[in-house]
Amino acid sequence: MNFEVTILGCGAATPTARHNPSAQVVNVHDKLFLIDCGEGTQMRLREEKFRVQRINHIFISHLHGDHCLGLVGLICSQHLLGRKGPLHLYGPPDLKEWIELSLKVSQTYLDFPLEFHANSFDGKNLIMEDKSIEVYSFPLKHRIECCGYQFVEKPRLPRIEKSSILEFDLQPSHIIALKHNQEVTLSNGTVLTPEQVCIDVAPVRSYSYCSDTMYWETLIPSIKGSNLLYHESTFLESEKERAKTTFHSTAKQAARIAAQAEVKQLLLGHFSSRYGDERQFVEEASEFFKNCTVAFEGLTIHVPY
Amino acid sequence: MNFEVTILGCGAATPTARHNPSAQVVNVHDKLFLIDCGEGTQMRLREEKFRVQRINHIFISHLHGDHCLGLVGLICSQHLLGRKGPLHLYGPPDLKEWIELSLKVSQTYLDFPLEFHANSFDGKNLIMEDKSIEVYSFPLKHRIECCGYQFVEKPRLPRIEKSSILEFDLQPSHIIALKHNQEVTLSNGTVLTPEQVCIDVAPVRSYSYCSDTMYWETLIPSIKGSNLLYHESTFLESEKERAKTTFHSTAKQAARIAAQAEVKQLLLGHFSSRYGDERQFVEEASEFFKNCTVAFEGLTIHVPY
Repeated sequence: MNFEVTILGCGAATPTARHNPSAQVVNVHDKLFLIDCGEGTQMRLREEKFRVQRINHIFISHLHGDHCLGLVGLICSQHLLGRKGPLHLYGPPDLKEWIELSLKVSQTYLDFPLEFHANSFDGKNLIMEDKSIEVYSFPLKHRIECCGYQFVEKPRLPRIEKSSILEFDLQPSHIIALKHNQEVTLSNGTVLTPEQVCIDVAPVRSYSYCSDTMYWETLIPSIKGSNLLYHESTFLESEKERAKTTFHSTAKQAARIAAQAEVKQLLLGHFSSRYGDERQFVEEASEFFKNCTVAFEGLTIHVPY
Repeated sequence: MNFEVTILGCGAATPTARHNPSAQVVNVHDKLFLIDCGEGTQMRLREEKFRVQRINHIFISHLHGDHCLGLVGLICSQHLLGRKGPLHLYGPPDLKEWIELSLKVSQTYLDFPLEFHANSFDGKNLIMEDKSIEVYSFPLKHRIECCGYQFVEKPRLPRIEKSSILEFDLQPSHIIALKHNQEVTLSNGTVLTPEQVCIDVAPVRSYSYCSDTMYWETLIPSIKGSNLLYHESTFLESEKERAKTTFHSTAKQAARIAAQAEVKQLLLGHFSSRYGDERQFVEEASEFFKNCTVAFEGLTIHVPY
């Protein structure tokens, strides 16, 4: 089952020739979720061959322009392309007023409902779930109210191999019961336990998104053990004072968070326009956390087991 | 003296791989003016090598997203890049409320003033002038309140050739008086008239911008005799019913307006995403108005004499 992240933009506040503002697509078992939606995201979706109508849930971390200014355009394009089904928007409470005024001044009357879900900034909260995924929000430490997001696969039922089904002549009712950890009595009187035939599937994975935030150990419990962590590293450590005053992080700080949270892999992003070569970020971070890589536009990274 | 228009985007409502939403830079005597500011305009400015801080006046035709959704991002980038001088915004009255709320929800406090100039939709109005240019707004006929804009060079003073200056030993006071159509008496008693030494400069030129509008003869007096006219042609004549119901124009209709307004050159733009080859627009329009061309991203067109 696929679980992967595609980077549409990983620049900081000012877009450059090299980086678009923040946006990424999380593909969980072929369902697409959008995190942040900086200016130009709808064009970037098209470039990466994602159909805009496949986006049904959009998670906005905060209302700085580089994380949300593409949202109205994307909504309008979904409308013009004939969308009817609801679009779910998760983000700060002010998101609703801003979107509604933006649509009102353009006299745009959508043919589909917008479902607003205002984030709480108090602890980690389950904000969305379906049969295969749970999504949580948790506060980050930035200049304005800002949330990170965590996508967690739900445990799947164990598998039963075809050879076992044939050997014990298992009927559908047997299979369902065994997968739900119940013993069954076969027609010949044999009692079969789940342990005898069930095979565990791969363990669940999680992806955590932390942009924008200063170095903030309080967030560590929320992302503990993530298989993949995207943590902003707007600056290098040489600019750590600037990182502090602007409520951003350095590559070293991102790596220290990753190490303490015992994540499997770290993905660095949200690079300031002052840097021309992001390899420096990996060099700095990997002293403190080995398995790290840098984001770039067009990167698709699989959430590792 | 240069007077040219650079197309940053000439697509209609839905951006495509071929077209960006509406935006264009008018360069009048090396001063840059921006007309409309669809999503991604700040990136397009950068691609075309225009420094964003050189933009001091932005003219928004109407508040449909494809004409204004890049504005907040551009303003924020000017702020982040250290702007101090005022930025003048011309457009519908609701523009102010929308921009102010967009800045408020992101807690962006600009270091420079935004000067809002609300358009009237009653007739043609002078809305801006400096020593070399006048800008007028005039109503178009669209689904929501929408204005076109006209840029008109101011007449320049005549020139006096260096040979005349030497021949008559003209002093600065003489030159100023002659250029302002006054006779002067030289030190030897000779009376010199402006006609004897002044050379006329090129006549003034004008550029008119009409996007978005249905076929509407009422606008003709506002653009009469323009040297260059940008008129939207969202559709071909085969879609004229659709053009009518959506308050847009066909290429034929744009050409008929150009012909009746006796403009020198017609530039077609605002193409619907349904068309893959814009040469059809020129073919259709040129039956009714010969000197026409199609806009494309990156085109710089000189306003002809």
